Amino acid sequence: MIKIAVDGMGSDNSPRSEVEGAVQASRDYGVHVILVGKEAVLSPLLKGQSRGSAVELRHASEAIAMDEQPTAALRKKKDSSIRVAADLVRQGVASGLVSAGNTGAVMAISKMVMGTVRGVDRPALAAVLPTLEGHAVLLDVGANVACKPHHLVQFAIMGHLFSKKIVGVSSPRVGLMSVGEEESKGNDLTKEVYKALKEIRINFIGNVEGRDIYNGRADVIVCDGFTGNVALKTSEGLIEAVLQLLKEELNSNLKAKLGALLSQRSFQRLKKRLDYSEYGGAPLLGLRGVSIICHGRSSSNAIKNAIRVAKECAENQVSAKLEVELSQVDCYARGSAPD
Amino acid sequence: MIKIAVDGMGSDNSPRSEVEGAVQASRDYGVHVILVGKEAVLSPLLKGQSRGSAVELRHASEAIAMDEQPTAALRKKKDSSIRVAADLVRQGVASGLVSAGNTGAVMAISKMVMGTVRGVDRPALAAVLPTLEGHAVLLDVGANVACKPHHLVQFAIMGHLFSKKIVGVSSPRVGLMSVGEEESKGNDLTKEVYKALKEIRINFIGNVEGRDIYNGRADVIVCDGFTGNVALKTSEGLIEAVLQLLKEELNSNLKAKLGALLSQRSFQRLKKRLDYSEYGGAPLLGLRGVSIICHGRSSSNAIKNAIRVAKECAENQVSAKLEVELSQVDCYARGSAPD
Repeated sequence: MIKIAVDGMGSDNSPRSEVEGAVQASRDYGVHVILVGKEAVLSPLLKGQSRGSAVELRHASEAIAMDEQPTAALRKKKDSSIRVAADLVRQGVASGLVSAGNTGAVMAISKMVMGTVRGVDRPALAAVLPTLEGHAVLLDVGANVACKPHHLVQFAIMGHLFSKKIVGVSSPRVGLMSVGEEESKGNDLTKEVYKALKEIRINFIGNVEGRDIYNGRADVIVCDGFTGNVALKTSEGLIEAVLQLLKEELNSNLKAKLGALLSQRSFQRLKKRLDYSEYGGAPLLGLRGVSIICHGRSSSNAIKNAIRVAKECAENQVSAKLEVELSQVDCYARGSAPD
Repeated sequence: MIKIAVDGMGSDNSPRSEVEGAVQASRDYGVHVILVGKEAVLSPLLKGQSRGSAVELRHASEAIAMDEQPTAALRKKKDSSIRVAADLVRQGVASGLVSAGNTGAVMAISKMVMGTVRGVDRPALAAVLPTLEGHAVLLDVGANVACKPHHLVQFAIMGHLFSKKIVGVSSPRVGLMSVGEEESKGNDLTKEVYKALKEIRINFIGNVEGRDIYNGRADVIVCDGFTGNVALKTSEGLIEAVLQLLKEELNSNLKAKLGALLSQRSFQRLKKRLDYSEYGGAPLLGLRGVSIICHGRSSSNAIKNAIRVAKECAENQVSAKLEVELSQVDCYARGSAPD
């Protein structure tokens, strides 16, 4: 049974989201979860509901707060729940880490403890987003706010492999985020990257625009972490605003209310299709190990789905495959696309 | 009566959107519209519907296609509809220009023909977006893909004045788009800009994130044109996707369909609140003249609203006020916020 280490102290709703998500994931996906955190906090909650699940506790005496400086947390808190969970992955006890804690700290600790795959200068955070046709992988969404062209080339290869192995797209269409479709459109960074992506053997479809994230034109969209973070958070904010406006309009009079009542299940399905928590957190790609970063506001459902994604990444040996492909990145230029 | 020059040949639906939008704006807002383009194309359409409106034709023998290189169009097509309309503004015949044509060409021609306000290095394209509380101005959304810190400082001042004079916010809250709220978050550009914005006397609220575009936290959001363009187009694409998903869900069974029928007016209001065409195009700020750039897919309603915005910018002398403020930009550092 695959073991996944879950940071029990991370989310805004911790430890409830983590405990419930761990129990549900264990039951639904047959995962053995090692829940890491303060035993005195986690144990009482877990006791009430763990029947039929394989969830064990692992004590860690410290927790990293949301507003702590990642580098300071890395240095000072050697027994933080994130650190202990990452250590379990490095030691081979667990096959992956899931945390909804301080994103910067999870990234820094994952990178330091697990190390990066040969050929990867910087791990990238990948978001899996719903589109009209299926799912698109957007990366980087915040691990690297300043990037050089070769970083984006590595992101493209990582996105290609993740889309293929985890999302299940046979020949992922990889687009480069820019401000127009023509090769001449964009900034200095994207123009350099465009040239490089033409030379490697992935299914590069050229520049895409913001609107192409959701229309299904691309399976993978590559950008620097600043741009990707803005695009992701703009989307989250807009969805919240639209659902709020919809609610207001449907509550504005009796006829509309009645209509909304009849259409209730449609709205629930819509919300589910738009809900990030269904998509299971963002994997930090390029590590020698699996690390899935969840939203601070994660529900138990989000944690559960993140554990599923961690399991899939581990089973599909995404890191090992990335290592093979990226350690010989020239193969992309020589002509054979990676499997 | 204020005269606005409208490029009759620009949009994907030209000349229908332009002719109808011009006639409606003239009737509704008491504007005199000079419709510029090929007379043989515009005249027949206008004849049928211009009664009761003040719309005159001005012949221009050339049109610039959507995919033409702006610089080439600027050089070669001296009698294009965009060029002739911009000339009318420079000559003082018209008080503003509205075009839904090739964005790059409208920007290049506007800049060359009208010139920039003293103190502005580069005009910025500002989008007015709906929020839960009112409207937010996002700039730049695509005029400048690469920016230096002082450009963003100028954008902040331009956005401040536009929000105050046109959107009608008494003390606009100006935010800097970044990847986290803390001053330490962001890339090299935003960190520099953060320092500079603290020193000038606008109501600078610090860094904001993508999600703050729509939640009403800021009245003005400043970013480089690459980031703004991605955020804007991501939003457009997401709204299209959400409305499409909503339609699918509401058509999925009879009960939902009936509910949707009862809630129909709510959906129409929601669509209207999300519809960019209600917000009247994006002003190119920092010119010695008014230039409003519309979406290529503009409807007649979008053109009509853009003409309204052009009229308001002209009446409020936004350019002249910018000139005053920016020609003495030090006043921001010295302590008196601009009126």
